[in-house]
Amino acid sequence: MTTNDEFSKIRWLTERLGPRRPQDDAVEVRLGIGDDAAVVDFGGRPTVVTVDTHVEGVHFRRSMMSSAALGARAFLAATSDVWAMGATPSAAVVALTLPDDHDDSAFRALVEGLDEAAHACGAPIIGGNLSGASILSITTTVFGTCADRIVSRAGAEVGDVVYVTGTLGAAALGFAALEAGAVSPDTETFIARWRRPPSHAAIVESLRTGATAAIDVSDGLLQDLDHLCHASNVGATVRGNALPRAPGYDETCRRLGLDPLNLALTGGEDYEVLFCAPAGAAVPKDVTDIGRITEGPGIVVLNDLGKPVDVTETGFRHFS
Amino acid sequence: MTTNDEFSKIRWLTERLGPRRPQDDAVEVRLGIGDDAAVVDFGGRPTVVTVDTHVEGVHFRRSMMSSAALGARAFLAATSDVWAMGATPSAAVVALTLPDDHDDSAFRALVEGLDEAAHACGAPIIGGNLSGASILSITTTVFGTCADRIVSRAGAEVGDVVYVTGTLGAAALGFAALEAGAVSPDTETFIARWRRPPSHAAIVESLRTGATAAIDVSDGLLQDLDHLCHASNVGATVRGNALPRAPGYDETCRRLGLDPLNLALTGGEDYEVLFCAPAGAAVPKDVTDIGRITEGPGIVVLNDLGKPVDVTETGFRHFS
Repeated sequence: MTTNDEFSKIRWLTERLGPRRPQDDAVEVRLGIGDDAAVVDFGGRPTVVTVDTHVEGVHFRRSMMSSAALGARAFLAATSDVWAMGATPSAAVVALTLPDDHDDSAFRALVEGLDEAAHACGAPIIGGNLSGASILSITTTVFGTCADRIVSRAGAEVGDVVYVTGTLGAAALGFAALEAGAVSPDTETFIARWRRPPSHAAIVESLRTGATAAIDVSDGLLQDLDHLCHASNVGATVRGNALPRAPGYDETCRRLGLDPLNLALTGGEDYEVLFCAPAGAAVPKDVTDIGRITEGPGIVVLNDLGKPVDVTETGFRHFS
Repeated sequence: MTTNDEFSKIRWLTERLGPRRPQDDAVEVRLGIGDDAAVVDFGGRPTVVTVDTHVEGVHFRRSMMSSAALGARAFLAATSDVWAMGATPSAAVVALTLPDDHDDSAFRALVEGLDEAAHACGAPIIGGNLSGASILSITTTVFGTCADRIVSRAGAEVGDVVYVTGTLGAAALGFAALEAGAVSPDTETFIARWRRPPSHAAIVESLRTGATAAIDVSDGLLQDLDHLCHASNVGATVRGNALPRAPGYDETCRRLGLDPLNLALTGGEDYEVLFCAPAGAAVPKDVTDIGRITEGPGIVVLNDLGKPVDVTETGFRHFS
């Protein structure tokens, strides 16, 4: 990127993303885009910080979605970690690397998508960085405010119920359909699900008050449950037939030659929230009970007959 | 990057960068590396946030320095913006994209370099992200605590003295020497200066109490002074012969066919701090008076005879 081009982009960004107010009234942006750094007053509460990178050729190809959809996806995927801590997104900074063939209209659409998602999350973009590079990448650092109790990966207790939001495997199915060029009315909703990770703003308060541990499902259910179990020093049993699946998911998987259970367990990029809570605790009504925390070690997945599935055959790699 | 490799790297990072205390006692890391997000309590004061990316093929080639030096450079370059706000670095998160041919020992050395600089800056690395990519990149988000008064780019007043820390052009000279393969005892100090941006921890307090405006010099003195003037709605006059130059700088420039004044004005990557203060105000003793803020508009550079230099011939591009 030439220097002049960078400056003209920054000028546009300063105007486009100008003074913004976080949804959280206690968070005040003292200085936004356009200076050496942004200045935020988080109101004296603990601040959650997470960073996530979307890299061309690894997480996406530009042909897979519009620039605006890509921006929104990168933002929501990063914000998923904030919600999974029981925190409310409050602000973000975004570093972009822009190849020469990524033109100004693509840049602007990318930022529009980032900003749309930022607005939906209540976390205005308050700063960032632009750099040239041979590949397009989006690195989003998101901040969140949380109550004094932090919902980390550690804290799950033996006997806790394991819950998950939304459905599993749908995003991986959408990605597989895109990869296979199988874009059809049947696969459209799955592709849309892959393109746009869900919001979890609605369950933050429940996580804060009721969850013993939580993690966002980005690497696949088994992998992320394993991270949580490792951090909590417990094991888990998961009922395969309890995993929440979107309408038409099983049929579409089979048509694409994919195993529905396997994909739900290991597909990844669900960006749902997996959390644990004591049996009987109040939880949001649209989450699914998928299993129990055990003494472990390890995770056991049961099939429809209650028999353990060999999870090593799913491609799951144990975190050890 | 394979999933297992990523997890083993994260395990190593969790141990290597384990619980850390910021130098600033009011900042408390409640939760560090290894969860969905880090949790920081900044003690209820405004928090400065900046992000900077170092991209292979744009900012560096791997052959130009050791992995450890690269890590330190990326960290210090990002932190420069925090100091230039009159803020004290308090914590950081780092997102790395790692190509397949960047082996584990290079990864570890890179992190050692990042951590060494983080320690030197008093800003522990409390989280991050790892991703595969076709190129190596380091995106550093740095936080800082500041007093209630923020030293932004806006605020310079007509008649203010323009000061700069350290020397100018030395880093650009070192880079040029590396590019030309002119590595010799004469160029060594300049190459070292390019590889390692300076710390400005010592002048933060002075900036807070005495500076009307400040900016870090990353794009070149003229460019960054122009940013400051634009934000402050003023102009400036710079005395070319007052620009601080390192011993041997002029001679080495000439030997490499570079114009010493031009390089000091536009070379960039100095990562010094440019600031303005009222005439007569107390300033640190190791900064240099290089000019005055004027009504403007625009920047005038005077040569040894007090005659204006045509700065458009320096490659300077006006921010307009």
